[in-house]
Amino acid sequence: MKRIGVFTSGGDAPGMNACVRAVVRTALYHGVEVYGIMRGYSGMIKGEIVRLDTTSVANIVQRGGTILKSARSQRFQTKEGRQAAFDQLVNHKIEGLVAIGGNGTFTGAELFEREFGIPTVGAPGTIDNDLFGTDYTIGYDTAVNTALEAIDKIRDTADSHDRAFFVEVMGRDSGYIAIPCAIGGGAEIVLVPETQQSLESVIEQLQIGRKRQKSSFLVVVAEGEEEGNATHIATQVKEAIPELDVRVTVVGHIQRGGAPSAADRLLASQIGIAAVEGLINGMRSVMAGIVDRKLVYTPFHDCITRKKPINQSFMRMMEILST
Amino acid sequence: MKRIGVFTSGGDAPGMNACVRAVVRTALYHGVEVYGIMRGYSGMIKGEIVRLDTTSVANIVQRGGTILKSARSQRFQTKEGRQAAFDQLVNHKIEGLVAIGGNGTFTGAELFEREFGIPTVGAPGTIDNDLFGTDYTIGYDTAVNTALEAIDKIRDTADSHDRAFFVEVMGRDSGYIAIPCAIGGGAEIVLVPETQQSLESVIEQLQIGRKRQKSSFLVVVAEGEEEGNATHIATQVKEAIPELDVRVTVVGHIQRGGAPSAADRLLASQIGIAAVEGLINGMRSVMAGIVDRKLVYTPFHDCITRKKPINQSFMRMMEILST
Amino acid sequence: MKRIGVFTSGGDAPGMNACVRAVVRTALYHGVEVYGIMRGYSGMIKGEIVRLDTTSVANIVQRGGTILKSARSQRFQTKEGRQAAFDQLVNHKIEGLVAIGGNGTFTGAELFEREFGIPTVGAPGTIDNDLFGTDYTIGYDTAVNTALEAIDKIRDTADSHDRAFFVEVMGRDSGYIAIPCAIGGGAEIVLVPETQQSLESVIEQLQIGRKRQKSSFLVVVAEGEEEGNATHIATQVKEAIPELDVRVTVVGHIQRGGAPSAADRLLASQIGIAAVEGLINGMRSVMAGIVDRKLVYTPFHDCITRKKPINQSFMRMMEILST
Amino acid sequence: MKRIGVFTSGGDAPGMNACVRAVVRTALYHGVEVYGIMRGYSGMIKGEIVRLDTTSVANIVQRGGTILKSARSQRFQTKEGRQAAFDQLVNHKIEGLVAIGGNGTFTGAELFEREFGIPTVGAPGTIDNDLFGTDYTIGYDTAVNTALEAIDKIRDTADSHDRAFFVEVMGRDSGYIAIPCAIGGGAEIVLVPETQQSLESVIEQLQIGRKRQKSSFLVVVAEGEEEGNATHIATQVKEAIPELDVRVTVVGHIQRGGAPSAADRLLASQIGIAAVEGLINGMRSVMAGIVDRKLVYTPFHDCITRKKPINQSFMRMMEILST
Repeated sequence: MKRIGVFTSGGDAPGMNACVRAVVRTALYHGVEVYGIMRGYSGMIKGEIVRLDTTSVANIVQRGGTILKSARSQRFQTKEGRQAAFDQLVNHKIEGLVAIGGNGTFTGAELFEREFGIPTVGAPGTIDNDLFGTDYTIGYDTAVNTALEAIDKIRDTADSHDRAFFVEVMGRDSGYIAIPCAIGGGAEIVLVPETQQSLESVIEQLQIGRKRQKSSFLVVVAEGEEEGNATHIATQVKEAIPELDVRVTVVGHIQRGGAPSAADRLLASQIGIAAVEGLINGMRSVMAGIVDRKLVYTPFHDCITRKKPINQSFMRMMEILST
Repeated sequence: MKRIGVFTSGGDAPGMNACVRAVVRTALYHGVEVYGIMRGYSGMIKGEIVRLDTTSVANIVQRGGTILKSARSQRFQTKEGRQAAFDQLVNHKIEGLVAIGGNGTFTGAELFEREFGIPTVGAPGTIDNDLFGTDYTIGYDTAVNTALEAIDKIRDTADSHDRAFFVEVMGRDSGYIAIPCAIGGGAEIVLVPETQQSLESVIEQLQIGRKRQKSSFLVVVAEGEEEGNATHIATQVKEAIPELDVRVTVVGHIQRGGAPSAADRLLASQIGIAAVEGLINGMRSVMAGIVDRKLVYTPFHDCITRKKPINQSFMRMMEILST
Repeated sequence: MKRIGVFTSGGDAPGMNACVRAVVRTALYHGVEVYGIMRGYSGMIKGEIVRLDTTSVANIVQRGGTILKSARSQRFQTKEGRQAAFDQLVNHKIEGLVAIGGNGTFTGAELFEREFGIPTVGAPGTIDNDLFGTDYTIGYDTAVNTALEAIDKIRDTADSHDRAFFVEVMGRDSGYIAIPCAIGGGAEIVLVPETQQSLESVIEQLQIGRKRQKSSFLVVVAEGEEEGNATHIATQVKEAIPELDVRVTVVGHIQRGGAPSAADRLLASQIGIAAVEGLINGMRSVMAGIVDRKLVYTPFHDCITRKKPINQSFMRMMEILST
Repeated sequence: MKRIGVFTSGGDAPGMNACVRAVVRTALYHGVEVYGIMRGYSGMIKGEIVRLDTTSVANIVQRGGTILKSARSQRFQTKEGRQAAFDQLVNHKIEGLVAIGGNGTFTGAELFEREFGIPTVGAPGTIDNDLFGTDYTIGYDTAVNTALEAIDKIRDTADSHDRAFFVEVMGRDSGYIAIPCAIGGGAEIVLVPETQQSLESVIEQLQIGRKRQKSSFLVVVAEGEEEGNATHIATQVKEAIPELDVRVTVVGHIQRGGAPSAADRLLASQIGIAAVEGLINGMRSVMAGIVDRKLVYTPFHDCITRKKPINQSFMRMMEILST
């Protein structure tokens, strides 16, 4: 393999730049040329492809976002679009790809490889941590810390005013972000898609707390929670307990930004190196991940179709700690 | 004056604890006893009043929120409520008050002084910076920095995805928070109540930017903006420019929390000292503030009724810097 | 077991308070009374022992330092001192202990148990991460992030001035803190006790970099590095390359403080729960730790005597990434 | 004036980039071309001069350091060096300069203008805040906040261990950084060059505190303190009070880096605009500053020779608050 391409796709995540840096430097270390493909599959189709050298990635390890930018591409979902993308890669003599992204990114990459034979190794870049094949995804640790810092600030206000705060954090269909935020933020209640906690039980817990003279409450809600989002739940709680001073905060997009944490920079670096070395060693349609501190490559198919279950002991921890 | 009381009232603000600390230590320094009144006027009525000494306020200078807590009191708005509050102060032999809060706090204190003769000196504690009689209010600098950090993170994502972000910051009826956030955050547009920028002109500016190949935009919206809140404005912009990828973030309650900035701790300390010394020197119904780096006492009446205009040069700065 | 004691000992670490909170709430959850022993073995000897309930540990999960304080005790190293400590525990009807600390703490606890039969379960609380029996110690993740934030700031200045910065981070006899700081901080060189990198090779690397027109350098030095501390090494480098603008920064004690990271709060909570439940289940002279995301109890003897080797792949990562 | 140059010189300061951005955009706004001179006077002599446009300064408002880099130039202190610099400016058709820096920068600029007639307007860019002609210098607010965050972390450790910490902060010959750090950090003692506090009085204060059962102390030392640096003072204190557990931390170069605070970004923007508009309006050898929230231009001669006294009331505040 003489020349590879690297791109970021899907929602941006802190640490993507650290991963791009590792990809570029590892390729150069092994004598492989490396090109950056801008805006994911969209830029691949349009030929937004630039040569990267070691200075292209200097001083980016600490930056949020992605210097390669990210975008969705409807056109790549068509055969015609993928043909156009392939033609561009051929034109640029790119023989393999490192794809930094999540489920959607790898689904596209797998299909692309099947149709056109371009090998791709993936790097799990998403704050949601919902990918099978790695204990943690790049960006997850930073997102949790960002959400937790927001919660620390909100607790200042909640305590000062004897209020119940409902804080919504990101995480799509999982409680991966919500649970450490709840445990680390000293929340009384956490609502995540993985459990079946009813609105009634939330109201009951709050009532019990009030009887015990607890004056401020913190409820962390995962955005994918089935009982509805934080605003919806808070409204219903307010109806049930009108004397409760209820407030809602949606932490929102700040969870995607900011300088990556140390853990995310390290993980992104490990995986970036592994992705390039996997590609050089002939791997294709696999994602590089770290499981139990060991490097593993998992077929895209498994990453996409298998569910990574949340550690059930965390729910028990919440029960004990919110005593 | 042998014994004074101190309380915090209205929305909490970072630096309130630093101010409480200064009040307590200054009183003790001058041989005056000091009592903390919990939950503002509400606790005054109920007699939630505790003796404070120098260790009561140790290690709080850096804490967000307020150790004295804050609450609204409907009852204090009645003559009966104020009579009950006065009776409690008499019972506790409290001869003067330091009130840390905003407009509503001082309105209550002025009336209370007129009816019952209890002298109060105020300290401007609110993130909104909308009080006449001081260049900056306690908590304002921290709130701006918190909002700006959020904007820095959002810009990572905006740049990575070529998006237009509408970010709503606090500030009630003024652009005091929004304007430094927009200038410091490198925003293209700022919408504040003080100007009459129409929705049409916003759309026009975005259209011009797009023609100049600008791909990401940041619009900072003050919560009191007349054209509506960030969500409302973003929705209308999306209708006018459907191809724009529009997102909204409401920074929200995190702006009230967190460790106070250096400037807020210094200001809170200066004002806390000044409030106690003013009280000792016979002042009443005035607010201690800093104007042009000098200590001034302004009658509550002026603080409440006079408007502190925003520096018009800031709007010109936005025009130049968003070039 | 009806009543247990908990104490912190050795250097303080962020997350110790989160661990204390978990210990207290887990004990209460299981119907066990819990007492806080102030200042480690020193307070145990003096009987500085206080009852803790659920509110004693409210609002501390996010605080740096330790509410139980920490101290060294010469007297506990004598039989007489340990006898005095035992007498105090008997007086207070304390039947088991949770010790939060490091090597020295556990050495004392093991001896104490052998002599007096008081069972102790340990929690690894040290920023150094040098304890066998757990992948990460409580406080380590926060310390790395703090050091890395300092390095990010220093790089701003290094880049602006074309300088070589030698930054010394903590970590006693290991490179656990230095290595992720170097990888995550984009350092050119890392000096850790585990490798035998000579001063000559450092100078050579810098010379090569200079020939390649690199203008600023970052060298991360672990405090236990055999070639000497950062100041010593920098002085010798300056002698060898006089035209290099060399500066030194010792990150120092800030690495021990600050709000714990999300990962540290979670780890501290997991381990705090596990320590109490281990104690209740009859364990003694073991440390609770997390290895490969699973809870394990390791005999104190192994924690103290066995060395946890640093991941050798990290040194290879440095070589690739500093290309 | 058709074309101007901008450069940064002396120690870097957070906000320098925000100032460069304002200079560039203001020049373009007024139809004036703008060139960046790299590495201060050094790059001016060598002709390291690059055209800047609006995108050159996009996304830098939040960055520490300076994209124009900074360096000292021995050669500019000679007539020959200044002649070479002048020749380069003539070659590049640069008719005026904006110099962002401190005392040394302005001394050079004034001489340069006298000899060669090139008008310069200065912007006060230094963390030391020791320039006459402006209430605050660009970078000062950020540096104070950075030092204060370090102090907050150190206090965690000081409190946990009952220690006396001597923390040295920057500030050359003044206490501008030390004083707000001491007040905002809840320090017991501050040592600054402006006062004559003897070592004996420090020891006495510590002894009194110890008698009052105070167990931890924080002493903030300005680097230019006449009694010596923090290490020197701590050593002598330890000799006088051997039973005190004494530690030293030098906050160091991190004070120069990091994202600028909101206040610094705003100040840098105001001054950058004012500098360019002053230059266009025919000013020369003056520094733009903000005094009592109003824009003022002060002759370089005054900036260099006049001393900006520290607010004496701060020393009284320390006395009251450390009660």
